[in-house]
Amino acid sequence: MKAIWLEDGNIEQVEIPAPVPPSGEALVAVRTAGVCATDLELIRGYYPYTGVLGHEFVGEVVSAPGRPDLTGIRVTGEINAACGTCPTCLRGDRTHCENRTVLGILSRDGAFAEYLALPVENLHPVPADVPDEAAVFTEPLAAALEILEQVTIAPGDRVLLVGAGRLGQLIARVLAATGCDLTVLAKYPAQQRLLGLAGIRATDPGREPVQTGFDVVVEATGSQTGFETARKCVRPRGTIVLKSTYKGRIEADFSAVVVDEITLVGSRCGPFDKALAMLASGAVDPRPLIDGRFPLARGVEAIRKAGGPGVMKILLKN
Amino acid sequence: MKAIWLEDGNIEQVEIPAPVPPSGEALVAVRTAGVCATDLELIRGYYPYTGVLGHEFVGEVVSAPGRPDLTGIRVTGEINAACGTCPTCLRGDRTHCENRTVLGILSRDGAFAEYLALPVENLHPVPADVPDEAAVFTEPLAAALEILEQVTIAPGDRVLLVGAGRLGQLIARVLAATGCDLTVLAKYPAQQRLLGLAGIRATDPGREPVQTGFDVVVEATGSQTGFETARKCVRPRGTIVLKSTYKGRIEADFSAVVVDEITLVGSRCGPFDKALAMLASGAVDPRPLIDGRFPLARGVEAIRKAGGPGVMKILLKN
Repeated sequence: MKAIWLEDGNIEQVEIPAPVPPSGEALVAVRTAGVCATDLELIRGYYPYTGVLGHEFVGEVVSAPGRPDLTGIRVTGEINAACGTCPTCLRGDRTHCENRTVLGILSRDGAFAEYLALPVENLHPVPADVPDEAAVFTEPLAAALEILEQVTIAPGDRVLLVGAGRLGQLIARVLAATGCDLTVLAKYPAQQRLLGLAGIRATDPGREPVQTGFDVVVEATGSQTGFETARKCVRPRGTIVLKSTYKGRIEADFSAVVVDEITLVGSRCGPFDKALAMLASGAVDPRPLIDGRFPLARGVEAIRKAGGPGVMKILLKN
Repeated sequence: MKAIWLEDGNIEQVEIPAPVPPSGEALVAVRTAGVCATDLELIRGYYPYTGVLGHEFVGEVVSAPGRPDLTGIRVTGEINAACGTCPTCLRGDRTHCENRTVLGILSRDGAFAEYLALPVENLHPVPADVPDEAAVFTEPLAAALEILEQVTIAPGDRVLLVGAGRLGQLIARVLAATGCDLTVLAKYPAQQRLLGLAGIRATDPGREPVQTGFDVVVEATGSQTGFETARKCVRPRGTIVLKSTYKGRIEADFSAVVVDEITLVGSRCGPFDKALAMLASGAVDPRPLIDGRFPLARGVEAIRKAGGPGVMKILLKN
């Protein structure tokens, strides 16, 4: 099968055998996959991964052991494959399994391919009224929803989102749905326009003064300056959610974090069921975020394009 | 009156007028004061403070406007003097008042003196059965108890305390009282011995392997290496409490904090009422932590001694 292979910071189109799913795993024919900032960071060497890239996908089940009802069903899938027996799994934190593999990220070939394998329990059928080009956003939308699993955000709470890139756009839509008093810092006109389409007013930090005293700040830039902004804008006893892949180490004034009793919360993968429900209800329509569609055969070119400044979601299609 | 004055990193014994309390404030004759790591950090320039040092004290009320019943009463006092009218005060976060002064730390002369002034509402009468040399620990014990205001710690939870210095010793006693499964990293034999007196087993990180997978880690060293240890030892989705004055900026791998969904909680001043209750009940007896007693007239020498390696609590007596 065709696939996009990462090795030593290089990506290339390769022809490799389709995966042969081990016991308990399903074979899925990928229909559409999405390029994420984490893919770009993996290429830059953020984490030493060798294999097929890609973890955002929608596909069709070819075979699923013990679940013949799934064959031919359109699915998306949770990316962490858990052992189910380590202390972390037994505590219920399966996405943090000590022995996990992660689709396209850690010891498991990913979704930029014709086929992938995942444990049957990781698969989520996609409701019929959610088109592929919305369903492919399930994984990042679930990641955005993880914030609400970790931090209570109520109508009227003053919330600041720093950054309005690929993931930031989805976070903005999730936060807006809570009824909170939301401010979104968006640097690029294209980001501002996309927020406007979703009825969310953008603040251009280069042109408008940024307020302070926010109850919750979500940092979605992954940069030192983004963190500095978050730190400056959160109120004493407020919460900063770290929701990005950070480039290298971040310097922080911990004494100030102590004096102001700030809480920092790292946030990663989230609930697929809730993400699919939001896509099915139309509460979030991510399709305006699509910036390009490429056949898998042009996958390397697609990923390069995704790394351009201000580029939103690039899709790979089979 | 005699006082210990800090200016440009130098401390000296001075003779200055006693404070004249403004409206709403009481005049307190200091009986005993304690030297804290924050005092030493202020001298090193952690924060540009000029004035009388000291914020841990027990004293006797000389005069308290509107509260004649307090005259002659033995008290300790909360160190943050709040305006009561800013948005932060109105939200109930008076210790974070935007216009606050802080005893011996920020725009308010402190407790290394014969007299100090504090708002009447900051004062807490000391129960008769709590001697001065225990009551002088009320402020740091309250700071230790703040952890329990912020993080739920239940019997059986696996908790690690990194550091067993002045504040660490009090934190250890507070954590032990929760019934949690507590491990305390203590570097110095004297620290280990003091923990033993309180029935707490110390772990010497230089001689025993340190376990990992803790639900909660309290970082009480204020150092980069202490934070690295905390980060290594906390479980995924666990909590690190930052409970120290940090020297300079700390570098952190935020991507790892995100991947493991760690929560970092800055923690400062805590509940005086609960601290006094613990001292009165004997649940905590801090007096074995006293490493020296000096008359105020030898205050500069006392503070120098407090800065020595492994030195615990130094008291100044009037």
